[in-house]
Amino acid sequence: MRVMQIEGEWGLDHIKLGQRPDPEPGTGEVLIRMKAASINFRDTVMVNRGYGRRSGELPLVPLSDGAGEIIGLGDGVTGLAVGDMVCPAFSQTWVNGPFSERSWAGTLGGPVDGTMREYMVCRAESVAKAPSQMSAAEASTLPCAALTAWNALVTQGHVQAGDVVVIQGTGGVSLFGLIIAKMHGAEVILTSSSDEKLAKGKAMGADHLINYRENAEWGRAVGEITNGRGADHVVEVGGAGTLQQSIRAIRPSGIVSLIGVLSGAGGELNLGPVVTQNVRLQGITVGSADMLREMNRAFELHGVQAPVDPDNGFAFEDVAEALRTFPEGRHFGKVVCEF
Amino acid sequence: MRVMQIEGEWGLDHIKLGQRPDPEPGTGEVLIRMKAASINFRDTVMVNRGYGRRSGELPLVPLSDGAGEIIGLGDGVTGLAVGDMVCPAFSQTWVNGPFSERSWAGTLGGPVDGTMREYMVCRAESVAKAPSQMSAAEASTLPCAALTAWNALVTQGHVQAGDVVVIQGTGGVSLFGLIIAKMHGAEVILTSSSDEKLAKGKAMGADHLINYRENAEWGRAVGEITNGRGADHVVEVGGAGTLQQSIRAIRPSGIVSLIGVLSGAGGELNLGPVVTQNVRLQGITVGSADMLREMNRAFELHGVQAPVDPDNGFAFEDVAEALRTFPEGRHFGKVVCEF
Amino acid sequence: MRVMQIEGEWGLDHIKLGQRPDPEPGTGEVLIRMKAASINFRDTVMVNRGYGRRSGELPLVPLSDGAGEIIGLGDGVTGLAVGDMVCPAFSQTWVNGPFSERSWAGTLGGPVDGTMREYMVCRAESVAKAPSQMSAAEASTLPCAALTAWNALVTQGHVQAGDVVVIQGTGGVSLFGLIIAKMHGAEVILTSSSDEKLAKGKAMGADHLINYRENAEWGRAVGEITNGRGADHVVEVGGAGTLQQSIRAIRPSGIVSLIGVLSGAGGELNLGPVVTQNVRLQGITVGSADMLREMNRAFELHGVQAPVDPDNGFAFEDVAEALRTFPEGRHFGKVVCEF
Amino acid sequence: MRVMQIEGEWGLDHIKLGQRPDPEPGTGEVLIRMKAASINFRDTVMVNRGYGRRSGELPLVPLSDGAGEIIGLGDGVTGLAVGDMVCPAFSQTWVNGPFSERSWAGTLGGPVDGTMREYMVCRAESVAKAPSQMSAAEASTLPCAALTAWNALVTQGHVQAGDVVVIQGTGGVSLFGLIIAKMHGAEVILTSSSDEKLAKGKAMGADHLINYRENAEWGRAVGEITNGRGADHVVEVGGAGTLQQSIRAIRPSGIVSLIGVLSGAGGELNLGPVVTQNVRLQGITVGSADMLREMNRAFELHGVQAPVDPDNGFAFEDVAEALRTFPEGRHFGKVVCEF
Repeated sequence: MRVMQIEGEWGLDHIKLGQRPDPEPGTGEVLIRMKAASINFRDTVMVNRGYGRRSGELPLVPLSDGAGEIIGLGDGVTGLAVGDMVCPAFSQTWVNGPFSERSWAGTLGGPVDGTMREYMVCRAESVAKAPSQMSAAEASTLPCAALTAWNALVTQGHVQAGDVVVIQGTGGVSLFGLIIAKMHGAEVILTSSSDEKLAKGKAMGADHLINYRENAEWGRAVGEITNGRGADHVVEVGGAGTLQQSIRAIRPSGIVSLIGVLSGAGGELNLGPVVTQNVRLQGITVGSADMLREMNRAFELHGVQAPVDPDNGFAFEDVAEALRTFPEGRHFGKVVCEF
Repeated sequence: MRVMQIEGEWGLDHIKLGQRPDPEPGTGEVLIRMKAASINFRDTVMVNRGYGRRSGELPLVPLSDGAGEIIGLGDGVTGLAVGDMVCPAFSQTWVNGPFSERSWAGTLGGPVDGTMREYMVCRAESVAKAPSQMSAAEASTLPCAALTAWNALVTQGHVQAGDVVVIQGTGGVSLFGLIIAKMHGAEVILTSSSDEKLAKGKAMGADHLINYRENAEWGRAVGEITNGRGADHVVEVGGAGTLQQSIRAIRPSGIVSLIGVLSGAGGELNLGPVVTQNVRLQGITVGSADMLREMNRAFELHGVQAPVDPDNGFAFEDVAEALRTFPEGRHFGKVVCEF
Repeated sequence: MRVMQIEGEWGLDHIKLGQRPDPEPGTGEVLIRMKAASINFRDTVMVNRGYGRRSGELPLVPLSDGAGEIIGLGDGVTGLAVGDMVCPAFSQTWVNGPFSERSWAGTLGGPVDGTMREYMVCRAESVAKAPSQMSAAEASTLPCAALTAWNALVTQGHVQAGDVVVIQGTGGVSLFGLIIAKMHGAEVILTSSSDEKLAKGKAMGADHLINYRENAEWGRAVGEITNGRGADHVVEVGGAGTLQQSIRAIRPSGIVSLIGVLSGAGGELNLGPVVTQNVRLQGITVGSADMLREMNRAFELHGVQAPVDPDNGFAFEDVAEALRTFPEGRHFGKVVCEF
Repeated sequence: MRVMQIEGEWGLDHIKLGQRPDPEPGTGEVLIRMKAASINFRDTVMVNRGYGRRSGELPLVPLSDGAGEIIGLGDGVTGLAVGDMVCPAFSQTWVNGPFSERSWAGTLGGPVDGTMREYMVCRAESVAKAPSQMSAAEASTLPCAALTAWNALVTQGHVQAGDVVVIQGTGGVSLFGLIIAKMHGAEVILTSSSDEKLAKGKAMGADHLINYRENAEWGRAVGEITNGRGADHVVEVGGAGTLQQSIRAIRPSGIVSLIGVLSGAGGELNLGPVVTQNVRLQGITVGSADMLREMNRAFELHGVQAPVDPDNGFAFEDVAEALRTFPEGRHFGKVVCEF
């Protein structure tokens, strides 16, 4: 089968088209014909071996997010059928329960080979049916980007109707956070540096908009919008600069989900209010296969359309180019490679 | 009645002996003859109006922690009797449930008058019976110092037998953390810069000792002690310097309770592992009156002796001196003023 | 002020119009001009002293649910103003946290005087603002009927989008359960013995309808609708007969909220599947004042209209008649007395 | 290899010595030389196909609980070594998270072959190291009997120091419940019909003893012992008769763990107090492999000795006799077959 893989040395320049033997499903496994894969920030770090020994070894097939069609079943598989569109779970060894050391061993796109290949074999319990209304491109955005937002807001955050949720920007996790928050009856405050992106977010259901370029002290603005209560949840995807505002925005005993890579680069972070306000800063590491099944069922029920950027699609062979341009942030919605 | 109060201006130099009218208990209230009060780090901040408007207004009776004997009951009080030794809860408006904006309004020692007074009147639901084996001096250390550790490990942390708990140093919260962790069957790793203090901690039940002066990378040492698993809980009481080690010490999906005032002064904090390891950083703001009742019942059942420093006791009138010398950290155990 | 009260002896025949002194708000309290009160099943039990000593003493003002307008404020009240429409919380001594012995002491309509009076004085923390779109009649249905459903599904049940929720019948708790489940993106299966009522439920958003008169084994029908998964939540309001079906309907590790008075009268109940399926049967005792505030905020955000039965309204003086006819079950929606 | 298996027909009389091919460990699997197996009530039901289709098919190797030594490792196994004493998890398909439909598929002793065989091959994640101080006989009692008590009190119950725990009788789950409750600093009330067994329980740490033959209304006795508070936890292992007393014994918002098979045979059960007291009845279906690892770590730290009955041991070939005499209840502690 054809794969795109990092060969010889780490780095974008070393992503090459390669050949691997066709895999076969064993007992309890399914064979998937992959149709699409999508880009996450994590992939741009991994390609440079940015997670150290947890990046795995070369050659490595990149990308964690993808979707495809089941074309073969091993013995003993129930609940799945040939023809089903499915998403492989981010970690093939994290079926349910909390994130653990064991979960790391099976994460796609490093250390385990990822989704940029013609065929994948997965244990049946480590794939989830895609919502039936979604194309393969849409479904390819679910296992990491969407599930990270779901884990933050639903599994860990128990978001409920009437809660105020702050969504930062319009990246993949954030747009899914917006969809998921509204699906649970919450009130959404969206921040962005672009009025154009804010307008798109409003069309997707955001209740309040803050342009943080015009309003750098947006944590205070959240206080005003909520009559001094503060937000119940903040989905923190930013760098070192935004966390201080998130801490200002959150209510006592609220939860700030940490998703972005927070390097603290040169910044001074005052965690005093975390203590005096009983705030929870919760690191979020994507989610389990069971969470993915739950989320996909919810998305199916609600007929959700995944926010794929129609203007930033790539072909299978062009994944290196997709990774190269991703950090420029010109997209609105997910960047997808279709096979 | 006699009170010690901050008068005229904020600051240690302005703590004076004063007179206030004797209070009387109304419906649902109890009248307490105070016997002892103890010092927390918070008090040294408050005396300089360090929490801004949340410090309250002058004159202010300082200190949050104390104990005394009930000498009068208002109508409708049940479950308490004249002669009971009790502890007023840290926040008189936080009976149970999570910390909220409402809790702030009633915290003793600022914004509400604290425990340095002959008599207090409290709502019955806002005091807890002291464990019967404790002296007033011991009981005076429970509402803040002990309860903070209880909230971190028990209410929020659900500590269970076999868990590994890292306790930093030998301050009041830390020693109570050690007692509480052992009471629940956990394994305790204690850090300190002093071998003498470590030896005392070992006598109190600590299973593993780390002198962080000799072993600055103590987060790694925790990894070795736990065979690479990491700790289940870290009770983080330090400044900016220790949090990075705590994050290194914690296992995936573990909980770091933030208690100390973390100013990040000049420090660079890398929160990346919080995200990739699904870590929870949980701010802890003391605890509710119901938590205090639970803890005191446990302490009574176990015949706990509170760690009062016998060499650092003060008289009622010397509270300013107690506050002045407290930050020097020469004590082992709680610094108490006996009335 | 005028009150309706049970005088002399317990029982419907002893509900009389009476006079009480006008109350005045003390520190931290509000004075409310009551406008409406609504009937719950509990009231029909209480009127006959059906909860024993917990029913309180005569004379007793009946009814737990009500709403009115603030017409006076004691000192120190913040966040509420004259003119606000508010609901007194079911238990005036249960502000937040879990239900406890303390909560019993302050429940309206027994043992404490209830809502059938011209004026009420409540502590500010024990009332919640009504959603602004609601009439007094609508708001009067919130503190017990609506909040019981909220506590079951949201606070205890953490209902999430995509969950399957079984709602039994079309009584007050059930209709609010339907509204709340849909507000959180869940899929609702509604049961009733009346096709007419099922049709009304469908208009309110129910996804699946089961007439249990035609389909007594409705637990099995739930299995079929969910492709064998079972329901995530069942809001069990029925008598002894329905619980067995609820246990059949629930998925492994699901939650059955027990709300109705389950007398087991003569019935044999097989709890075996509760054990083998890890099911949680959770008794629900209305909810706290903080839960009421959360729910009302959600209802305001969503512009919820409370299901008041327009054909079964009563005047203040006719509360005995309202209680007498309530068990006949001819209403669809809440039965309200308007003052 | 030699196995004991139910052959041809269900029932005790059809348990025969049989031969099966020696198994070999595949990737990620371990090969175990079984040393001991112990009896649970469940086994006496299963042998008669008492769980219907969930009992599996004949021939079936019975028993869920067992222990043995690793004698071979497949590729890719980490954290386990040849020579380790291990316990296979009750369900080989329930690694962590809550009990689910998937968990049923892999339960030992039906529908999957159980522990009465010379060799077992298990996935590495589905076995747990035994505490090093335990014999094989002791370790054989952990995966079901001990873990059921752990799941009830620790995972679901979050038992904490000072809690009051009611333990019913002196069966396997109950004795482990006593050990686990004391390990977490709780206060234990033990019930039994035998003063001799009560005395043995007291020697193991029980704080209060109730002979329910002399005191049938033992729920009331719990109220008296707790000064009217009620118990925080009841581990309910009895039949229909005891649940009513458990409901009387529990405090508001307390948890009754349902473990025994509660047939309600002829009994009338009044669930009214479950509703009015906000009680949680929680079905407990053993526990996951991760829970087993947690528990074994705690047992190792505490040097726990498992309560094996020295007077009721059986040989491998005598398992049918062990199952036959088990319901007579003459044992104190676990009944074990040593190979």
